[in-house]
Order: sequence, then C-alpha cells, then structure tokens
Amino acid sequence: MQETGPTQRGDGTVRYKAVVAYDGTGYYGFQRQNNAEPTVQGVVEAALTGIAGEAVSILGAGRTDAGVHASGQVIAFDMAWHHPVQALRNALNANLPEEIAVRSVAEAADDFHPRYDAVSRSYCYRVYVSPTRDPMRRWRAWHLKSELDQNAIRKAVAFLGGEKDFSTFGRPPIGENPVREVFAAEWDDAADGEQHFTITANAFLYRMVRSIMGTLVMVGQGRMTPEEFRGILAARKRSLSGPAAPPHGLTLVSVTY
Amino acid sequence: MQETGPTQRGDGTVRYKAVVAYDGTGYYGFQRQNNAEPTVQGVVEAALTGIAGEAVSILGAGRTDAGVHASGQVIAFDMAWHHPVQALRNALNANLPEEIAVRSVAEAADDFHPRYDAVSRSYCYRVYVSPTRDPMRRWRAWHLKSELDQNAIRKAVAFLGGEKDFSTFGRPPIGENPVREVFAAEWDDAADGEQHFTITANAFLYRMVRSIMGTLVMVGQGRMTPEEFRGILAARKRSLSGPAAPPHGLTLVSVTY
Repeated sequence: MQETGPTQRGDGTVRYKAVVAYDGTGYYGFQRQNNAEPTVQGVVEAALTGIAGEAVSILGAGRTDAGVHASGQVIAFDMAWHHPVQALRNALNANLPEEIAVRSVAEAADDFHPRYDAVSRSYCYRVYVSPTRDPMRRWRAWHLKSELDQNAIRKAVAFLGGEKDFSTFGRPPIGENPVREVFAAEWDDAADGEQHFTITANAFLYRMVRSIMGTLVMVGQGRMTPEEFRGILAARKRSLSGPAAPPHGLTLVSVTY
Repeated sequence: MQETGPTQRGDGTVRYKAVVAYDGTGYYGFQRQNNAEPTVQGVVEAALTGIAGEAVSILGAGRTDAGVHASGQVIAFDMAWHHPVQALRNALNANLPEEIAVRSVAEAADDFHPRYDAVSRSYCYRVYVSPTRDPMRRWRAWHLKSELDQNAIRKAVAFLGGEKDFSTFGRPPIGENPVREVFAAEWDDAADGEQHFTITANAFLYRMVRSIMGTLVMVGQGRMTPEEFRGILAARKRSLSGPAAPPHGLTLVSVTY
C-alpha cells in the first residue's frame, strides 16, 4: 500500500513497524487508558521512551481486549535510532517485561499506519474439552467439559465466509458500517486435544470473534443448529448472538499489509 | 503390585489414588517444607482437610522441584468418603486453586504407595528455538536463541537406554545406589516449533532429567560430541555434567504401577 520507502523526517526520526507478541493476562487490553493500568500500549511506550530519552507514542493494528493475547500484533512508531533495527529489537526486549516481546522491527514508509493500512487480520480461538481443567492452559484456552459436535460447528463456520453485515456478532465504531469481509474461517483439531477456530477478515467489529465463538460452541453443544446459526447471522440483530466466549482463549495471530 | 482390593479400615477410611496436574510456577515444589510456602502437597492437603473436616496427609509419587510442572503426578491418601469418587474429584477441584487440578480419583488397595509401588515415571522437557522469547511459553518451555543439531542430540539420547549408573547426572537419596533403568528416551519435533525430550525410567536421581537435558543442549550446540556425552555418562562423575536446564521446561507426565 506504500509508495514511498523509509525516509528521515525533519526531526531526525524514522517510522518503524514492529511485530509484538504478548500474554494479555493481567493487562487491560492493548490500548492505553486513563483509568486502567497496565496496558500493552502503555508498557511498550514506556520502554521506547526509556530507550529514546524522549516521549515515543505507538499506533497499533488492533485493540485487543483485556485478557486477549497476541502473537502478531503490529505497531508503528517514530524514533531517531542510529543502529541496526535488530539492535532496537534487542534493546526493546531487554526493557520490556516478560509478558511482552518484540518479534521483529523494520523501517517502514513514513506514512505507514498499522490500522488503516492493514489488508487483513487473523485471530485464533483455542478451546479444549476435558472433564477436568488443565492448570497449564488456564490463561491460554477455554475449558469446556463436554464434547462438541465438530461436524455441526464446521457447517456453521461455512456460513461465515464472504462480505456480510455482521451486526449480530458485534458493533462497529460510531459512524462506520457493520459490513466486514471474512476471507477464511476454519475449525481444526489441534495438538493436545485442543480445537482451534481461526478466522481472517479485512477487519472485525467489536467483540466479533468472541461472539461468533460463543455461538459456535452453542452449535457444538446442540443448543443451536447450523441453519439457525445462519438465520441469526442473516437477521443482523446483536441480541440473537450467543454469549461472548471468554477473552483468554483468543489470540491476534497476524496482520497483513 | 497389589494383592488386595480396597478395604475399609477400622477408622472408616479408604485409601484413594488420585492423578494430579499442576503449574509449578510460584510453588516451592511438590513436597511440603517447613520454611517455604506454597507447596503442592501443602495446598492439596489443605483442600482435603477442608473437605474431610479432619487432617488428611498425602503421599506423592515424585518430588518435583520448584517451578517443575506435572500433568500426571500420582498421590495417595486415606479418607472416609461416602459418595462416588467422581464427587470427591469435583469437590477437590472446587477447593483447589487454579494452578492445581485433580484429573481422577479411584479407590486403591489399602497398602498402595504411589512412590514405592511405581514401576516407571515419564518426564517431558520442552524447549523452543527462536531469536526472540515467546511470552505465552515463558513458564512452560526453555527458550534457546540458536538452532540445535538434532541429529547429534539423538545420537547422544541413544546412549541413555538401559540399566546404568547415572551418577554423572544426579545424586541418589542417602543410602541408595545410583543405578537406574531407562526404558525409553526420545527427542522429538513437536508442534509450534517446540522440541521435546521425553524419558521414562524406573526411577530418577535428584536433578537427573534437568542435568541430562542441559548436557544434551550442549551437544545440540556443538559444545560436546555425542561420543563425549557417552564418555561423561560412563565416567560416573557429577562434575562432568552440563549445567541443569531450568525447571520451568520440565513436566512429570505419568507414573505407572
């Protein structure tokens, strides 16, 4: 989407793009807030500010909720840095708490915006079925006690693809329309008895992935048929959605440009 | 190993066997200690005592170190319980903190001892290789920055099988000999870029799995050849071992009887 390469600004700064991973447990989501700490944005900005010696702000691709994780959140910031980008990545990781890590840093076009320039985002929601909870997964996957009908779930998932009004499953920012385009949606058996719901779209409404997930689980539990799922999606009524799945099973996996 | 089935004692108690999973992060190991809290044993005993209304002590199959996890630790205890064992499992899980879960409870022979009666124990050590750390794995797997030569490691692992004096890799309890029999040892590529070292033996010396793992990583990094690994094992000298791998990558997977 960018026509220009990295350029140095009048103030000596360059725009950087970084890929960030975090464990959202114990954080009030990605976005900095006035009354709630810590946030991922606040902690990353503090680390950058410490390295730069002056205030540095970041932009993020997605505003993950409290308790939601990321393996591929994308951020941008302007900074004067006179060493290789890998040294900036290492300096950041040395200054971040262990819940947050920078996976890569690269120079970007000077108007690069991680949110507006994004072409697609992918999320993964993890669930595991077991009569007893697994302590090692308590912040990583949703625990369900009874088996899910995966065939029924996959039939419902098949209705998600394409450009649609997703009002049933979330609300758009004020002044935006509720149409989003889902490029891919899958329900997979994964390692260690986990089942993963992966969905890629141009963008998502607020709470959309968790609301879809909560409703898919209702389908898997036989409390809603795949055809009923299709019906509530077509009805575009927020009140028809199942309850949102808990945040800790959700991970922002990647953002593409 | 048991010749008798469950019987009720004179005091009305029955011996139970339970399989326990825990996240060892933040615990001073399995075994109750005078000066360090919490321990897994102490917390499980407190939950059982609360349910029974009188003091209940437990026996454990393996004394995992501080920070080491379990998916299949086995414990035994005596208790008067007048409901199905599944209700005891559920009552325990309702009274345990989220770091500890009871996977199953069954009646056992009245002389069942989880440590002395064990035929084998299996441990798994998880490592992942990445230039940057992964926040979601920080308490579950050992992070290494550079690639490991898995062929060299597998050659070293092949020397571990059979009945041997493992003095190089650990020390026995006072009065016990350092010979242990390794039934199986494997180095596997696992999901999500992890590599898993799994080892099953009749029993283990203190720090044995972590010492072997730390030394195998030296082999994988080219700092020791597989033949040298074989040589230090044969030398039976504790000082020749590589440094112990950190506790948080290790899990007690199962105990068989």
